[in-house]
Amino acid sequence: MRADLEVRRLRRKLARAQAQLRALKNETPDESGVAVSPLAPKGGFPDLPVIPGVEFASVAAGVRYRGRTDVMLARLCTGTTIAGVTTRSATRSAPVLDCEEKLAMTPDLRNGAAIIVNSGNSNAFTGGAGQKSVQEITQAVATRLNIPQSRVFSSSTGVIGEPLPHERITSVLDELTKALSDTAISDAAHAIMTTDTFPKGTATEAKLGEDTIRIAGIAKGSGMVAPDMGTMLVYIFTDAKIDTALLQSILRRLTDRTFNAITVDSDTSTSDTLLVAATGQTGDDIVAGSANEAAFSDALHKVMRDLSHQVVRDGEGATKFIEVTVTGADSPEDARRCALAIANSPLVKTAAAGEDPNWGRIVMAVGKSGAKADRDLLSIRFGDILVAENGWVAESYREEDGVACMRADEIVIHVDLGLGEASDTVWTCDLTHGYISINADYRS
Amino acid sequence: MRADLEVRRLRRKLARAQAQLRALKNETPDESGVAVSPLAPKGGFPDLPVIPGVEFASVAAGVRYRGRTDVMLARLCTGTTIAGVTTRSATRSAPVLDCEEKLAMTPDLRNGAAIIVNSGNSNAFTGGAGQKSVQEITQAVATRLNIPQSRVFSSSTGVIGEPLPHERITSVLDELTKALSDTAISDAAHAIMTTDTFPKGTATEAKLGEDTIRIAGIAKGSGMVAPDMGTMLVYIFTDAKIDTALLQSILRRLTDRTFNAITVDSDTSTSDTLLVAATGQTGDDIVAGSANEAAFSDALHKVMRDLSHQVVRDGEGATKFIEVTVTGADSPEDARRCALAIANSPLVKTAAAGEDPNWGRIVMAVGKSGAKADRDLLSIRFGDILVAENGWVAESYREEDGVACMRADEIVIHVDLGLGEASDTVWTCDLTHGYISINADYRS
Repeated sequence: MRADLEVRRLRRKLARAQAQLRALKNETPDESGVAVSPLAPKGGFPDLPVIPGVEFASVAAGVRYRGRTDVMLARLCTGTTIAGVTTRSATRSAPVLDCEEKLAMTPDLRNGAAIIVNSGNSNAFTGGAGQKSVQEITQAVATRLNIPQSRVFSSSTGVIGEPLPHERITSVLDELTKALSDTAISDAAHAIMTTDTFPKGTATEAKLGEDTIRIAGIAKGSGMVAPDMGTMLVYIFTDAKIDTALLQSILRRLTDRTFNAITVDSDTSTSDTLLVAATGQTGDDIVAGSANEAAFSDALHKVMRDLSHQVVRDGEGATKFIEVTVTGADSPEDARRCALAIANSPLVKTAAAGEDPNWGRIVMAVGKSGAKADRDLLSIRFGDILVAENGWVAESYREEDGVACMRADEIVIHVDLGLGEASDTVWTCDLTHGYISINADYRS
Repeated sequence: MRADLEVRRLRRKLARAQAQLRALKNETPDESGVAVSPLAPKGGFPDLPVIPGVEFASVAAGVRYRGRTDVMLARLCTGTTIAGVTTRSATRSAPVLDCEEKLAMTPDLRNGAAIIVNSGNSNAFTGGAGQKSVQEITQAVATRLNIPQSRVFSSSTGVIGEPLPHERITSVLDELTKALSDTAISDAAHAIMTTDTFPKGTATEAKLGEDTIRIAGIAKGSGMVAPDMGTMLVYIFTDAKIDTALLQSILRRLTDRTFNAITVDSDTSTSDTLLVAATGQTGDDIVAGSANEAAFSDALHKVMRDLSHQVVRDGEGATKFIEVTVTGADSPEDARRCALAIANSPLVKTAAAGEDPNWGRIVMAVGKSGAKADRDLLSIRFGDILVAENGWVAESYREEDGVACMRADEIVIHVDLGLGEASDTVWTCDLTHGYISINADYRS
């Protein structure tokens, strides 16, 4: 029994230390050297360019947190087109349902638009009161900015099942609108954080004929400290000129290769929302099938991939960034299914945490995925190291080479199914004591 | 940084303590008060009845472990019918593939049969050598017992990707056959253990007309200490008289409600095998659709449910036994999908570990499951406590009631989708530091 008691004592000590770390996080989510994920991009938050036609403001409304900003407003100029994708959850939140309705409408572009986001309360599973809160907030913003309510998009992230005190948000709208500035996107990235350990932002440019357009984006996620729901929120802004339908179709295609190709723990939020706003301030209309469309799409993909990877790098307790590529699959569906089975396998993720080149667990994950597979055609690589082939460990494989691959911060797992031409890549992080501490120990 | 270093130090200490626990386990997997799961059935291994027509033997062959038995042989009398189910993994092991072939054959019941199982090496992902090992072992047993090779079933559990030293098994067959005894089933349950913390067995009786038949079963699983593969092996023996086809159809139906309704970490072994042998020594032929079939099926279900729950109770790091019931589903598929989404959710499982009545995570799991659901019709209960209904937390719900439910060793989660008549129940355990330590820390 003594060893057992010792373990309990260590777990309590570990839990307390983690609780201290989380306390630090919530006070200063990004300025604390202790709390920031070891996988955070070096150099801190990037300098993001001004996007003509977009202004930002953020304030501390005290929705739930104290001593930090928790509401951000983005005002978008007349003519701005907006596209979006949201969670497929059957229990999605009131703001998500409201966004879906508005995204489905044909907008009157003679009006401007707005995006308002609060952290601290997700307004999810709040019944009829949740819908009323969305109404109150979006109507107040519409009145304040003199635009139709149908052009005001809202998101909420934070605790679930508690009524959103929307008056705390509507009561700061004067302050917000006074503060609007085209250089305040970094503050906006901070205001939407919940348990994120660093604010997430990135930007790029694209040459469309003579014109250079800019794309800048911010994101939050996917920390989940109970009783909060982990929520992924992404807002991308560009001065390019593109109609809603084309922007929506490009966004859908790119989402499948970016935000739909990442997983932290296979759990899906009720609030995930991604909006892209194009203000049309620079260049001519982007025409479907044109070189300009290709250039714009490539630039948007770059921004979306970067932000989606930053979300994984801030995964709870993450110490490894893992890329899983499956090639030689019988179909694209099989490639995705197999890659996600590996990326979501607790045994694969704990092996990564333990820096263990445990290729047997990858064989297991391939086997359980439901994807068509033949043991004797399967090959597995860690980075460039061939680990297994022809239904057995590779003759050339040496355990120490595998260990070296797993010691890196970034691990690449490559499975070739040897059956067809289809391939896919997904990204995840490892499963560590940190994840358990964040999600289980806070009551210890 | 100091808090961070402190956490690392605690993790190393925790990992070392866990390693000591595991070392204890492997030496004396069931006699150590330290290692045994807190969810293990009270009173230790049950007294199992003799099943007329079945003899058992086990020896220490040194396949991998030292100082413990690791091979078990069961000899089955002439006329024994055998049914079985195996893993659906696309990378299943050589013995599984061999069992599948033999289960598909029409057996010559004028011969006896045998089951031989080794622990320490799963003979999975061992290419052609793996098939040769199965041939060598089953042929040697067939010769030794003077029965056709087609009636010798084998299983292997343990390390993956290493050639099975089958000569260590064939060389102990004399010793095994000499030791055969109809009272040695408990020793057999020990010999098939790998990282199990307790041997698993149960038995029952059924009255078929004038006759009383017995059913006794043993199981191992689902511990997975890298680089071993977690394997679920189940062997059930009865003296009832029932033809192979009927036994197989009963087994398939019951498996769906027992061994296919449990999950520890959503990962599936390459070696899972369940065999039922009916020696026909007692009573008349069981006729399809008869009262005797119903009585036999109920008794077999009882044994299978008990063994499957024991597997969950020995889940790695488990401290809570969790039953998830979904009612009011639109279809049986939706009920199962929704129940498994809850049971496999890392956030639900860590909430249980933290004794946190975090119903928001259950809403999330329902939402992501893909099952048809309507937020406003959904209701959630912990045990008898109504937690949420009509799309919001229940007015009557008090947090302290929820906490009381979560403090128990056994947690019951009940979700009613309020849509249809379909329902299902699955069983799982919580996700704890113990799981991470077992699967990630052994290299720390």
